[in-house]
Amino acid sequence: MKKINIGFVGAGTVGMGAIKILETKKKDFNSMGIDFEVHKVCVKDKSKERAIPAGCELVTDWKNIVEDPNIDVVVEVMGGTGIATEVVMSALKNNKAVVTANKALIADNFAELLETLARPEAPFFGFEAAVGGGIPMISTFQIQMRADLVTEVSGILNGTTNYMLSKMSAEGMSYEAVLKEAQDLGFAESDPTADVGGYDARSKTVILAQLAYGVLLDENKVFRQGIDRVETIDFEYAQLMGKTIKLLGVSQQTKPGEVTAFVSPMAVPNDKGVGQIHGATNVVSIKSQFQQETLLVGEGAGSLPTGTSIVSDLVRMAKADQSSAFAQPKEQRFTADFE
Amino acid sequence: MKKINIGFVGAGTVGMGAIKILETKKKDFNSMGIDFEVHKVCVKDKSKERAIPAGCELVTDWKNIVEDPNIDVVVEVMGGTGIATEVVMSALKNNKAVVTANKALIADNFAELLETLARPEAPFFGFEAAVGGGIPMISTFQIQMRADLVTEVSGILNGTTNYMLSKMSAEGMSYEAVLKEAQDLGFAESDPTADVGGYDARSKTVILAQLAYGVLLDENKVFRQGIDRVETIDFEYAQLMGKTIKLLGVSQQTKPGEVTAFVSPMAVPNDKGVGQIHGATNVVSIKSQFQQETLLVGEGAGSLPTGTSIVSDLVRMAKADQSSAFAQPKEQRFTADFE
Repeated sequence: MKKINIGFVGAGTVGMGAIKILETKKKDFNSMGIDFEVHKVCVKDKSKERAIPAGCELVTDWKNIVEDPNIDVVVEVMGGTGIATEVVMSALKNNKAVVTANKALIADNFAELLETLARPEAPFFGFEAAVGGGIPMISTFQIQMRADLVTEVSGILNGTTNYMLSKMSAEGMSYEAVLKEAQDLGFAESDPTADVGGYDARSKTVILAQLAYGVLLDENKVFRQGIDRVETIDFEYAQLMGKTIKLLGVSQQTKPGEVTAFVSPMAVPNDKGVGQIHGATNVVSIKSQFQQETLLVGEGAGSLPTGTSIVSDLVRMAKADQSSAFAQPKEQRFTADFE
Repeated sequence: MKKINIGFVGAGTVGMGAIKILETKKKDFNSMGIDFEVHKVCVKDKSKERAIPAGCELVTDWKNIVEDPNIDVVVEVMGGTGIATEVVMSALKNNKAVVTANKALIADNFAELLETLARPEAPFFGFEAAVGGGIPMISTFQIQMRADLVTEVSGILNGTTNYMLSKMSAEGMSYEAVLKEAQDLGFAESDPTADVGGYDARSKTVILAQLAYGVLLDENKVFRQGIDRVETIDFEYAQLMGKTIKLLGVSQQTKPGEVTAFVSPMAVPNDKGVGQIHGATNVVSIKSQFQQETLLVGEGAGSLPTGTSIVSDLVRMAKADQSSAFAQPKEQRFTADFE
């Protein structure tokens, strides 16, 4: 039995989802020869009641996890790009495997991460949970698309804004009313800028572009238009054309090595493809030279869906799968017969 | 640079697709530290002209590949369940990795394969190409769904019959006329029984059920109804209900460890989900406890799509990914809170 000691930094929605799955499937993992133990969980407030496994230590200093020689893998689910960046970088420097759901952190520190992970002895770095919740988007690029040549990636990558746009489209609600409802239901943050401004979708678009083309885009140079200027009347106009409005993140390899990308609300046919993906569901369409088109659809957010991606990364790590890091080599841009 | 010598047994549509991809992406794989060489190809007729890489030896006896100590991995793409079974079983016994697209072979020899692959020292066995062409169905079960608990798998798993049903639905063609057209175009075999009788879809349904639930179904006990009794008038009736007809392979875990499965033409809504998947495209819907529903759509057949799955398996093998074999442990049926 291979024992894997896990330290969680953060115990919010996603973290608690992953911990619940690890407990629920404990016997399954044991029968695969893996014994996951949640060894420590770093939280802000130790007194808050939580469903933490027996024997697990609560700590308030993340260094208590990152510097603990008994911990094999650090799961960073605190979010943000401040302390979380320190947590991830320190863990990697201490040769601990890292699993994270933090798309903003990855997009903001992409060059440094790529350099750190390029070392042959680099630890496992899992980030399936960072894009598309429980949809296997990252592994599809890391495994299946390694045998292909991607020309376009486009999709609905943010559940909050898709929930809002779906409501506006179906019920004619105003932007302000639907935002308030989403906030009341906990689907949108009190400061909703990251979602409605398209920043979250842009981070994800940049991550998928790196996986797809081996090209690192400067996030700040990627055109970004959120949904905060979309009005009820826009849906009425779209409807006249048999269309609806979706916030899409798009990247295209127009020539070998030349990648363009943007995030923007777009009018799309309402009776097929992305136009039929409603609510918190995410979708990505991958166009490629050999396979033509692959479509992946599923829950793009939430405690258990995103938790499955954290846990599937832990299984990959335990199984010593080395195909974890950023997938496509830059050299693919020179592939002979690509046009 | 890790050198991997490949022996192909068979050089038909799928084999030549994989060989073309290996050549096209040679530099990409080199930059990942892998040097694939197609060392030998076993064919029926050496005199037939083929786009075989320089330095590759053509042979007519498969033992010349399976017993060659220089060959690391045997790619079985000859098809059928006769000699192909000998090829795969001998290769595994000789501790060679095996990559195959042969769903009938797997379904027919499932118990023996599982036993062979359960040994800790068992070689890599890749079969992404056996189900869903270039769609990453197998790896989704092997990686993402390991962190979940699957309750239902359903989909369009046979491109030939979906092409035929799509034509019958859109153009009102008779079964006989559309079968003749599919045969003339090379989409259907001269003996089309495996496709139109639902046998191919049943093999795939059994494979996905094993991956999903860890339960091995007896193929011959799985209910199977093909499309050979579907008539034009059936589409007219379906249309009255806003439906169309699709050949679905379905398995459900109704209680922990209790799995039912069938292959049958079914009336499905024609304006959403599987009802909108036409032509040679395949789709699988995976319902699970944590992620709820995941939908994977893409090309389910063809030289290059299926070739990408062969090649992505070769990359996984070269990267020593041990998560290749049949995924779900049987013990998962006892997961505590499943209902």
